[in-house]
Amino acid sequence: MDIEKVNSMDFGEFMDVFGNVIERCPLIAAAVWSKRPFSDLGDLEKHFFAFIDGLPLSGQEGVLRCHPELAGRELHWGRLTAESQREQSAAGLQNLGAAERLRLSELTAQYRARFGFPFVLAVRLSDPAAAPRELARRLRCPPAQELRTALGEVKKICHLRLADLLGEQP
Amino acid sequence: MDIEKVNSMDFGEFMDVFGNVIERCPLIAAAVWSKRPFSDLGDLEKHFFAFIDGLPLSGQEGVLRCHPELAGRELHWGRLTAESQREQSAAGLQNLGAAERLRLSELTAQYRARFGFPFVLAVRLSDPAAAPRELARRLRCPPAQELRTALGEVKKICHLRLADLLGEQP
Repeated sequence: MDIEKVNSMDFGEFMDVFGNVIERCPLIAAAVWSKRPFSDLGDLEKHFFAFIDGLPLSGQEGVLRCHPELAGRELHWGRLTAESQREQSAAGLQNLGAAERLRLSELTAQYRARFGFPFVLAVRLSDPAAAPRELARRLRCPPAQELRTALGEVKKICHLRLADLLGEQP
Repeated sequence: MDIEKVNSMDFGEFMDVFGNVIERCPLIAAAVWSKRPFSDLGDLEKHFFAFIDGLPLSGQEGVLRCHPELAGRELHWGRLTAESQREQSAAGLQNLGAAERLRLSELTAQYRARFGFPFVLAVRLSDPAAAPRELARRLRCPPAQELRTALGEVKKICHLRLADLLGEQP
């Protein structure tokens, strides 16, 4: 799909295609629609990123809270969005052994308790074995820094999803 | 449900209950979660309203665009959110005659073409026969004024939904 195709979409089509590039935040795609026409993938994603950056702290935390738990129940019960299900499955998170699942589940619970949002990681860019290590590392970061890191992961996920949709190299 | 019960909810429970008080914008409830504890219904709704007021223009348009068409296909096909289905059905919009439906459908299409978002009306507060008249009137308003009016309707809908959930008189 090229950018002319994107610019020719009506609102319903745009939402069907881009409504979930920020996980479970269709409001953001509905806002980005105001910014048409887009010159290219970079321009389109710039508007998604700018919207997130312009949110108050509560809104940025809200974006993070709309994300599912990493390797959580929703993955195992097949209740994630199609995009998350694909990403977490491809990263091998559905095939963890019981001990690894338990370890991850303890860490994600600690993370949520500490920061008030779930641990978000662009799993396609990371080695699955690295996820628990990365989680343990980020768990010790100061909250303001961790918020920035987590929003950076949201943007990486958004970039990868947009590149997939537009058939471009990420 | 009283406000102590609301304040005792975990995030998942809060989203299950309040995730759709702003139609199809769970991000807003997920952001309002940052503002706990709430002192009463008025305090809770104040945070929903303040979040909407703090959004950039594109975000406010995005909130409106997340709303369904009034008396549109989604109503007739039963594909609205539970809240909208109930509200539009109770307002008698499912029982319009063919001529009235066609008239409303022409007006809502004109409205969307003019303003870039669907016609939003707190139908529980309005006489169903008045909807086409109100639509025709608002269709002639200047865009900046109409955006304010439409967001006011979003807030009325939010207030009614919150009052229902908390079992209070609206």
